[in-house]
Amino acid sequence: MRNLNADNITDAVITQFAGCDDARLKCVLDSLVYHLHAFIRDVEPTEQEWTQAIDFLTRTGQMCDDKRQEFILLSDTLGVTMLVDAINHQTSDPMVTESTVLGPFYVADPPAANQGEAIDWGVEGEPLFVEGRVHDERGEPLANVVIDVWQSDGDGFYDVQKELDSASLRARFTTDERGRYAFWTVTPSPYPIPTDGPVGKMLEVTGRHPYRPAHVHFMLMAEGHDSLVTQVFAENDPYLDSDAVFGVKDSLVMVYALLPPGKAPDGRSMQTPYRYLKYDFGLQAS
Amino acid sequence: MRNLNADNITDAVITQFAGCDDARLKCVLDSLVYHLHAFIRDVEPTEQEWTQAIDFLTRTGQMCDDKRQEFILLSDTLGVTMLVDAINHQTSDPMVTESTVLGPFYVADPPAANQGEAIDWGVEGEPLFVEGRVHDERGEPLANVVIDVWQSDGDGFYDVQKELDSASLRARFTTDERGRYAFWTVTPSPYPIPTDGPVGKMLEVTGRHPYRPAHVHFMLMAEGHDSLVTQVFAENDPYLDSDAVFGVKDSLVMVYALLPPGKAPDGRSMQTPYRYLKYDFGLQAS
Repeated sequence: MRNLNADNITDAVITQFAGCDDARLKCVLDSLVYHLHAFIRDVEPTEQEWTQAIDFLTRTGQMCDDKRQEFILLSDTLGVTMLVDAINHQTSDPMVTESTVLGPFYVADPPAANQGEAIDWGVEGEPLFVEGRVHDERGEPLANVVIDVWQSDGDGFYDVQKELDSASLRARFTTDERGRYAFWTVTPSPYPIPTDGPVGKMLEVTGRHPYRPAHVHFMLMAEGHDSLVTQVFAENDPYLDSDAVFGVKDSLVMVYALLPPGKAPDGRSMQTPYRYLKYDFGLQAS
Repeated sequence: MRNLNADNITDAVITQFAGCDDARLKCVLDSLVYHLHAFIRDVEPTEQEWTQAIDFLTRTGQMCDDKRQEFILLSDTLGVTMLVDAINHQTSDPMVTESTVLGPFYVADPPAANQGEAIDWGVEGEPLFVEGRVHDERGEPLANVVIDVWQSDGDGFYDVQKELDSASLRARFTTDERGRYAFWTVTPSPYPIPTDGPVGKMLEVTGRHPYRPAHVHFMLMAEGHDSLVTQVFAENDPYLDSDAVFGVKDSLVMVYALLPPGKAPDGRSMQTPYRYLKYDFGLQAS
């Protein structure tokens, strides 16, 4: 293993993983070395360019903390997250809801909320009522499904990006015996992914905009079924066809209907116009 | 750009870089997306595995500070650094010294030292006298070549890994009018690359040892010539054929001769046995 050159170093590195007892890990690392070296041979970076790449990765890692995940942003903006999603959730069953990216703003164990409750704690915005049903592949309602909801406010910011004392616009619901869920919130807006880090700089220098179309995130967890991570987008959003993270699917685009003041679907009396989103989720048996 | 799947997402992402004004950057990113997606399609990671990969990269970045560069270690141990080196320094001229990895322990602007000076400041070990000439491709001596030297001590540690108040076993020399350089130091030993981070863990779980054969690092900078980053290894070292970073070349392996007490090559009177390394460097005209 001396005198390695561009022609034989890839095999030499892969040979070094021959003693790996974990067959899956060995398979992943062999493939990583193969494709990473192919990339290097393809672009033939100068040493200065490779130093810049190392520096980019370093700054990306250093940008991460408990509220910021810059490597997820990188994965998202390079389409890798959606590729992993596509590989893991191949369904052509129209009764099963399509998945999309988790994004960097999910927080585990959000505050529990009751059916119909408002989750716009400490936030102002255009009222939005969201409701729907969760069913299985045959359309039968699923009770006791845990639904985590999170979203940006009307200015495009999540609670973790603001100086809030506690969670807002994120909560955990549970479907009732008829599979129903419902909550009041505010209408989300399109927003740029965080642009103050290396990933934002990458978008800027390559002429890409950082915007995502407005959406509400959902994570559904039900016994005997695959978990579902998805988003529901607003029709007519200007960024539906250029989502910075490649996450839009037609089946996830819905009308956030603008309704006049009056009696809302849950009986609440509205003094102002508000929006209404109805979305039913279908889960796949695991 | 909706409803992307494993078959069409790669083209969709590359299309997003169409507006990049920097042709070289666009070329690199297009290739990165192509090869990165090929890797993902090859190994088909579960979402949990991809989360583990994100976490590995994040921890690798967070391990970096002004004295530790874990991403360079990752690049080194995956053979990428040597591949970049091979691409950038293809020479078959026996008059030109071969290059090898920079490693993570280089510190810019080391303390200047005089011809023949000892650089083992505050360190004990087996004495080693190093000397040689720097010449061009025709063998003509090169004066005023800046030579940065750095190395581990006899226990395998660099100064930046220890609680030293100032630099040790690293210095900057300049060749004299006959192209000569010379210094006293201590004999380096084989050593493991730092194993307390994600890269060390990667080596451990894949059954790879972290050792590098003993060596002294050199960086040579001369006007009108390509800079040279290289290392001189010690013959008979047990790790010459399994260097953790794939950096050994036969032309860089030399005898660190063990000599008896007496008059050293520079006239110094030695009371103990010591080692002697003679190495001439050839630089390529730029």
